[in-house]
Amino acid sequence: MLALICSSGQLKLERDYPPPVPQVDEALVHVTLAGICATDLEIVKGYVPDFSGVLGHEFVGVVVASPDATWVGKRVVGSINIGCQACETCLKHGPEHCPNRRTLGIHHHDGVFAECVAVPLRNLHLVPDDMPDERAIFTEPLAAALRIREQVTIRPSDKIVVIGPGRLGLLVAQVLHLAGEDVTLLGRRRESLTLPASWGLSTGLAVEYAENSFDFVVEVTGNEAGLAEALRLVRPLGNLVLKSTFAGSSQVDLTKIVVGEITVTGSRCGQFAPALRLLAENSLHTESLITAEYPLHDAEAALAHAAQPGVVKVLLRP
Amino acid sequence: MLALICSSGQLKLERDYPPPVPQVDEALVHVTLAGICATDLEIVKGYVPDFSGVLGHEFVGVVVASPDATWVGKRVVGSINIGCQACETCLKHGPEHCPNRRTLGIHHHDGVFAECVAVPLRNLHLVPDDMPDERAIFTEPLAAALRIREQVTIRPSDKIVVIGPGRLGLLVAQVLHLAGEDVTLLGRRRESLTLPASWGLSTGLAVEYAENSFDFVVEVTGNEAGLAEALRLVRPLGNLVLKSTFAGSSQVDLTKIVVGEITVTGSRCGQFAPALRLLAENSLHTESLITAEYPLHDAEAALAHAAQPGVVKVLLRP
Repeated sequence: MLALICSSGQLKLERDYPPPVPQVDEALVHVTLAGICATDLEIVKGYVPDFSGVLGHEFVGVVVASPDATWVGKRVVGSINIGCQACETCLKHGPEHCPNRRTLGIHHHDGVFAECVAVPLRNLHLVPDDMPDERAIFTEPLAAALRIREQVTIRPSDKIVVIGPGRLGLLVAQVLHLAGEDVTLLGRRRESLTLPASWGLSTGLAVEYAENSFDFVVEVTGNEAGLAEALRLVRPLGNLVLKSTFAGSSQVDLTKIVVGEITVTGSRCGQFAPALRLLAENSLHTESLITAEYPLHDAEAALAHAAQPGVVKVLLRP
Repeated sequence: MLALICSSGQLKLERDYPPPVPQVDEALVHVTLAGICATDLEIVKGYVPDFSGVLGHEFVGVVVASPDATWVGKRVVGSINIGCQACETCLKHGPEHCPNRRTLGIHHHDGVFAECVAVPLRNLHLVPDDMPDERAIFTEPLAAALRIREQVTIRPSDKIVVIGPGRLGLLVAQVLHLAGEDVTLLGRRRESLTLPASWGLSTGLAVEYAENSFDFVVEVTGNEAGLAEALRLVRPLGNLVLKSTFAGSSQVDLTKIVVGEITVTGSRCGQFAPALRLLAENSLHTESLITAEYPLHDAEAALAHAAQPGVVKVLLRP
């Protein structure tokens, strides 16, 4: 099958990559649409040095084979972490932190920039019939955005800032705004704020705000300068949520965390059910997040496009 | 009066430093005993570049003048942060995070390595008659140790580690052990663990523990290698409390905070009342924490001694 392979940070489009052989608990899914995420771009830069296989983890597809035949023909999205289901972490917390986990397109499991992918049945979620693929493709990043509200209490009186108006930041700002929060979305360039401002979101340039301006800061910039900016903007006793994963160490002055008694919370993957429910209510802007769509055979061009500044979501259609 | 001055990181013992002139809400306290803390040593290294004045913030003393005469002659300890009492932070959270605060011997207020210090009455706490100065001197660092339990829920089932068997780490490990927690104190050298092991605390070398070994990690090493070690030892979804303040930036791989969804909490000063109550119960080892006592006129030698590895608490007697 056609597939975009990443091995030691080298991308290669293969025309005859062997299709996945589903394990006993896995469905074979024909990918109908895939999304490129910042993590994919980081993997290409070396964020997961030992990854070798099909890249990609955001997908919508149709089940073509399944140990439970009732799934066949169903349109699905799928969560990306595959736990061992036996360790204490799996039993207590689910698969996201299983030390033996595989992760679609990230760790020891082929991903979705391909014609087909094998996914455990327990990871699949039905997509409502009236939800287009172009909306359902946002389930995974929206779940990641909602994850913040699973982890940390956000008070209605909190002054919140989201730093980084990119793929994920635009969803994070929307879900906090939807919950009635006082949220401002900050970027480094005015042009990156046109879209969220057109939705009625409060926006601004990070440099326009004094230090300690916010009770609650979500850092979604994907670079270490963003972390320093986030630490500058959070007030003493405030909360800082880190969403960016990027390759390498950071040179940061962490003194403020201690002196200001800041709470820093790392945040990663979320649950699909609430994300699908929100998408079904159609109360978030997703269509305008799509910058471009490429056929899978142009995947390398699509990734290059996705890495350009100001580009939001780039989709791949196998 | 005799006083140890620190200005732009330069130490100088002055014989004729002008005694403090108490403001309208301040008592004049004759210092009878002072303690050297890691923060003092960091200030000498440049941690607070703009500090200029009398160093030191841990003290026991006797009130010699006060706007409320009932305090005169009383033996006291005093909390170190002096807030403006007018801003939102002071009104909501107290003086510790007031943006206009002064801090004894740290920021815009002369400290306690001197014969006398001026302290607001509201910062003073009476020392019980039967508590020796040599125990009361631990009120401030013990309050800082207890602060952790004001900030973060620690579960009886948590596997806890304290990294750094120094001045503060030895108190942190004791207060967690006292609360019935499963706590291990880790160091880099066996010799630094002899004392806490003699108290019956569980101890070990950090290198002996695999990554992700602990639910809850308190980092009290005072150096950036300690932070990397703490991140290595905390399990995914675990808690990391940072107690170390040190000069300069850190080069740290923060990826695990996000991927492991770690919660990092900075922790600084605590409340004096519970610390004094615990010291009155005499349920903690403090006497054996005292490595040496110097007269104030040997303050420079005392600071040099306190900076040696393996040295715990060094006291100064004016």
